[in-house]
Amino acid sequence: MSLAPWRSHLARALHRNRSLVYARYLQLATVRADGRPANRTVVFRGFLEDSDRLKFVTDARSEKAEQIDRQPWAEACWYFPNTREQFRISGKLMLVRENHPDPQLQKARQISWQELSDAARVQFAWPHPGQPRADVEAVAPAYPDPTQPLSDFCLLLLDPMQVDFLELRGEPQNRWLYRVDSDRNWSGEAINP
Amino acid sequence: MSLAPWRSHLARALHRNRSLVYARYLQLATVRADGRPANRTVVFRGFLEDSDRLKFVTDARSEKAEQIDRQPWAEACWYFPNTREQFRISGKLMLVRENHPDPQLQKARQISWQELSDAARVQFAWPHPGQPRADVEAVAPAYPDPTQPLSDFCLLLLDPMQVDFLELRGEPQNRWLYRVDSDRNWSGEAINP
Repeated sequence: MSLAPWRSHLARALHRNRSLVYARYLQLATVRADGRPANRTVVFRGFLEDSDRLKFVTDARSEKAEQIDRQPWAEACWYFPNTREQFRISGKLMLVRENHPDPQLQKARQISWQELSDAARVQFAWPHPGQPRADVEAVAPAYPDPTQPLSDFCLLLLDPMQVDFLELRGEPQNRWLYRVDSDRNWSGEAINP
Repeated sequence: MSLAPWRSHLARALHRNRSLVYARYLQLATVRADGRPANRTVVFRGFLEDSDRLKFVTDARSEKAEQIDRQPWAEACWYFPNTREQFRISGKLMLVRENHPDPQLQKARQISWQELSDAARVQFAWPHPGQPRADVEAVAPAYPDPTQPLSDFCLLLLDPMQVDFLELRGEPQNRWLYRVDSDRNWSGEAINP
């Protein structure tokens, strides 16, 4: 598989911002059941092997899991502070839950679980997110088995369909829009910032 | 007017992250005409006087202006790197265009224009955002008059209805949800992270 043309911009941004741990954090927008937007910070966990799909992890009990079932379209906004670049990545989300039928995706889910820190894994053993605060004991369980994902752990994949890349440095700024067609071929054009 | 209870958290976060210019950048999600989300980085320009409304600026020709006319609900996601705090602020957006009838809001629009840098003001003289790239001369006009907003310059206000505040430091983390009722009274509760 050949990489999408925006991948080289993104790889360079990740490299040039590697001194900032939070350069791997981005904001993922989805749409709620009532048609209003939702937006939260997620951590980029790399690309799914041999694909342009971005990996994140999430909890099956979180509001976004339900939102994705209704409306899989999302837009990620990723700002790189050191280089003053922004990527707006729109595409479709897919949740890989505990019972997902695809064995390759199940394997990817398993690997993502293993790659998490203990502190990240234990969050999937906490009480139901968003509900009234449980007592401290309930939210401080033992660290879960690193080889066996907890049932609420999901791999979350974003399959990009359009990437809007903005370089804020420069006057005027530079901006490119990349789009994929139904044959999965990417094309790009320079647009006004 | 008494300040909303989440304002003290936000004021503290702004103060503790003041060394980072990009701690004033946040991601604003809206909904497109086709029901898909949009998400972009915007710059926090302070609060509208005597209110909890967040100020931003935007271009009347941008896609978000049209999106707001159809669906004013938005969610801002604001991550503070130094203190590892996240604010998710949902509420209604309002655009203050050139012809807005409210004289106080017009005055606020005028002040926001004056407070911009030359480099920020000149962007409103650039060719239509998102269209195929114009030649360099067209995107390098003279600096506009700092006392007279260009016609496409808009003040953008976000009126918060719900604020979800997450402290990522700590194990477990701490999270609070604040909501406003129809009498503009705020209440808050601790919820599970």
